[in-house]
Amino acid sequence: MGSKQIILEFLSSADVKINGNRFFDIQVNDERFYDRIISQGTLGIGESYMDGWWDCKDLAEMMFRTLRAGGHATFSKTLVNLLHVIQAKLLNSQTRDRSKKVTDEHYDVGDDLYMALLGPYSQYTCAYFKDTDDLGRAQENKMDLICRKIQLKSTDRVLDIGCGWGGLAKWMAEKHGCNVTGINLAKGQVEYANKHISDPRVNILNMDYRDIPEKIEGKFDKIVSVGMLEHVGYKNHRIFMETIKKVLTPEGLLLLHCCARDISGTIVEPWIEKYIFPGAIVPSPTQLTKAFEGLFVLEDWHNIGAHYDPTLMAWMKNLDAAWPRFKEHYGERFYRMFRYYLLGCAGAFRARDMELWQTVYSHNGLVGGYNSVR
Amino acid sequence: MGSKQIILEFLSSADVKINGNRFFDIQVNDERFYDRIISQGTLGIGESYMDGWWDCKDLAEMMFRTLRAGGHATFSKTLVNLLHVIQAKLLNSQTRDRSKKVTDEHYDVGDDLYMALLGPYSQYTCAYFKDTDDLGRAQENKMDLICRKIQLKSTDRVLDIGCGWGGLAKWMAEKHGCNVTGINLAKGQVEYANKHISDPRVNILNMDYRDIPEKIEGKFDKIVSVGMLEHVGYKNHRIFMETIKKVLTPEGLLLLHCCARDISGTIVEPWIEKYIFPGAIVPSPTQLTKAFEGLFVLEDWHNIGAHYDPTLMAWMKNLDAAWPRFKEHYGERFYRMFRYYLLGCAGAFRARDMELWQTVYSHNGLVGGYNSVR
Repeated sequence: MGSKQIILEFLSSADVKINGNRFFDIQVNDERFYDRIISQGTLGIGESYMDGWWDCKDLAEMMFRTLRAGGHATFSKTLVNLLHVIQAKLLNSQTRDRSKKVTDEHYDVGDDLYMALLGPYSQYTCAYFKDTDDLGRAQENKMDLICRKIQLKSTDRVLDIGCGWGGLAKWMAEKHGCNVTGINLAKGQVEYANKHISDPRVNILNMDYRDIPEKIEGKFDKIVSVGMLEHVGYKNHRIFMETIKKVLTPEGLLLLHCCARDISGTIVEPWIEKYIFPGAIVPSPTQLTKAFEGLFVLEDWHNIGAHYDPTLMAWMKNLDAAWPRFKEHYGERFYRMFRYYLLGCAGAFRARDMELWQTVYSHNGLVGGYNSVR
Repeated sequence: MGSKQIILEFLSSADVKINGNRFFDIQVNDERFYDRIISQGTLGIGESYMDGWWDCKDLAEMMFRTLRAGGHATFSKTLVNLLHVIQAKLLNSQTRDRSKKVTDEHYDVGDDLYMALLGPYSQYTCAYFKDTDDLGRAQENKMDLICRKIQLKSTDRVLDIGCGWGGLAKWMAEKHGCNVTGINLAKGQVEYANKHISDPRVNILNMDYRDIPEKIEGKFDKIVSVGMLEHVGYKNHRIFMETIKKVLTPEGLLLLHCCARDISGTIVEPWIEKYIFPGAIVPSPTQLTKAFEGLFVLEDWHNIGAHYDPTLMAWMKNLDAAWPRFKEHYGERFYRMFRYYLLGCAGAFRARDMELWQTVYSHNGLVGGYNSVR
């Protein structure tokens, strides 16, 4: 069976047509598309989109349909993926040096673009669309949910591991009056946070999480890590948990908010690895539980993966609105890369091919029980 | 160091005194107590209590204090425990025949006693003390919580694996109008349920969960298993999940409600094994996630272990109130056995030495997301 036939057959199982007239149908502009996908798998799908070989008006819905029909398994069995798996197994992709490479490449590029994309609070993580369809309100919901889950009090000393541009740290200090230390490996984000946050209760530091016990004195009553575990790597999950164990007060609470997948893997999808998050690998349930067994008691596990779909769709809308300002600087190929990233991921979360977990932990179980909220 | 000295030293770390005058202090009636505990570990603690060698007014609080101080680890390292571990590793403690032995011994003894103990709805599982301190109301809460979590509709066909005396099946049929099939290996419970439940929508069958796909036709929209996974055994968790996978409709939901521990083990505490639940072994987070990876998507994980403390305390109160009726038949040693079981477990859940999880699963993730409720 030729490349085109294989792809058409698969697409028909997802009810997606080539050159059809529905928004989620694919318009092929270059017939080399079929061979490239068969030889390069999911990397080829993304790169051929960046090159303009195909288009799709409702890319998220197309991705949803094809993933729900089994696209992930179908197009992940290429040599490209296999090489990534071997590399991930042989190396530690998230050593100190490699971790710094990620932050330099992805997070240190274009604060102005991210600010336009993310909207108020500069939250580059999944929002919580409970009783709202507005991104800003949903990000407030998310930050409020985190504060309620960790039972935040004004007297708490808080640590935010991987604090981004400091939006959550600022929120916690302003709304709850607590002292928050944020750490982040991305120098640009740290500089931005220190420039824009004048609240003396917020302290943003440029450092690796592995250095916390040595470089920061004392313990924290509450520790949160929102959208950072994805960069820790499955080989380092345990040391991540052990590090937190050392600096959390005996009655303290830990909240982890992270993207995840239902099946254990050792690599992220190769296109995402190459263009968006080098070295990223999201945990599975077995990988996560193995990381905390014997260290922490699981108090709560909340799956809000479906909320990443509207989050990403809202970011895309923001990008489109702001694009005239950025067009000249970044160019068309960059736009197509970001569009494929945002809408492709929206479709993946819609298809439940990806998850988003908020998990809460205590050292030995809170006496009286933990009251989980939603 | 002699036995007595070792024990006194440990107890002082838990602020429990021998022959002290606080309710949670221990009154030693027989000095052989110390040697028996050192040689027999936790089994010796329970058996010496049954023999009247020691007493404690507030046994639950004493258990809470000693477990919180590390009692589990301290008194589990005996030869008795080691032999249990070896046996559990070599054998499958929950084969069809052995599973039948458990139900014959524990669940088929004295329906009248259990009815007096458990109160209305005959729920032999953890209640949900949300906004109430009344056991009956808390059991209604629990059943209501389960129905809300599985999004129960009148048109749903429901399977209840390990349905006890049919209380939840009856509730679902009466409150929601659905058809419920309950299966149970305990013949006495099945007979009791069939005698007392006249609702034609409820169907209680005497069978092993492994026989469901062959013996029951069609699939189920919702599957619940409340307090049964504890008897499945870690070697059979996977086949338990695979069996459910086969008989759950594509958009169906599964809810598991079970006791658990934070650390993986292969045996239950030997006294519980010998007198209360032979062959029982509760799952850990790593054991549970390993069992469902690749089969189900985890939609929600709710830890309500702290609610088992008031549940067990209420059962003890019920037993005490009804005891005059049962005293002659069961005798003093049986009473002490049940008191040690109920209050010891209450203390264990209070100490968070044990957990109680409600987890919810779908085959591939519900499109639109699962709305977790509390």
